[in-house]
Amino acid sequence: MPPGTHFGKEYLQRRIATEFALAAHIGVVVESVDAAGVVLRAPLAPNANYKGTAFGGSLFSVAVLAGWAWITRYLATEAFAADAVIQASSIRYLAPVHGEFRAKSQTPPRADVEKLARMLKRAGRGRIGLGVDILQGATLAARFDGVYAAIARDA
Amino acid sequence: MPPGTHFGKEYLQRRIATEFALAAHIGVVVESVDAAGVVLRAPLAPNANYKGTAFGGSLFSVAVLAGWAWITRYLATEAFAADAVIQASSIRYLAPVHGEFRAKSQTPPRADVEKLARMLKRAGRGRIGLGVDILQGATLAARFDGVYAAIARDA
Repeated sequence: MPPGTHFGKEYLQRRIATEFALAAHIGVVVESVDAAGVVLRAPLAPNANYKGTAFGGSLFSVAVLAGWAWITRYLATEAFAADAVIQASSIRYLAPVHGEFRAKSQTPPRADVEKLARMLKRAGRGRIGLGVDILQGATLAARFDGVYAAIARDA
Repeated sequence: MPPGTHFGKEYLQRRIATEFALAAHIGVVVESVDAAGVVLRAPLAPNANYKGTAFGGSLFSVAVLAGWAWITRYLATEAFAADAVIQASSIRYLAPVHGEFRAKSQTPPRADVEKLARMLKRAGRGRIGLGVDILQGATLAARFDGVYAAIARDA
């Protein structure tokens, strides 16, 4: 088995479920995990507002978890004893979401990942920017950009 | 009674509770409503992550609701038959939140409010930027800036 392949869907689903009290109420499910990124999914009903569209806070929450899942998987795969936290982010809402939606974190440029690894080794902490698309079917419903910090547990 | 004083705490609490499915799980309470702004409060427990600090998605959600509450109250007070939605926002996380927290929306500059009213009357829709401070006690834990659209119901 290539290194890291065991830090997949089940691993991330378990970590999200045990580490974020609100995740169960949002109904977040890890749909897929591969080299292209991490995809989370959530149903509309628990996240709906009175217009039958998804609450902006729910779309943000699933997006921030998708970025967190990407970096958490990276840290586990590379055997960094470190945790990730969000530092800053922005979101643009492009289209109302009327049903189930997905948040797809994009694998960042290799140079950014290498810089994160270098900083973690040198200073016990590093940062990385992650983009997340929020999709309803094939429609881009929102775009999230976050800066995450990774901090060594013994730092 | 001066105009609009009946669109206070109870009004906003009822609208948040009935219009956002997730609000009950976050435990949002309208704490105060006055000329200085709207203050919402939420407990840590339902919003905690495994480190015992508040989830970034929860802080964002309470902030976006505080801005929504400000503009929703403004629309009701001025008798605009319009609804508010978030269009874009950014948030910076400045300090971890270890307990109950508050989101305080700031009353925007008068010129911005007048422009919103003018656009609503002329075009049936307008936009306004709203800043929200997220506080734990007296500590500024996060800063949220959102752009909201107000759209007339018959537009």
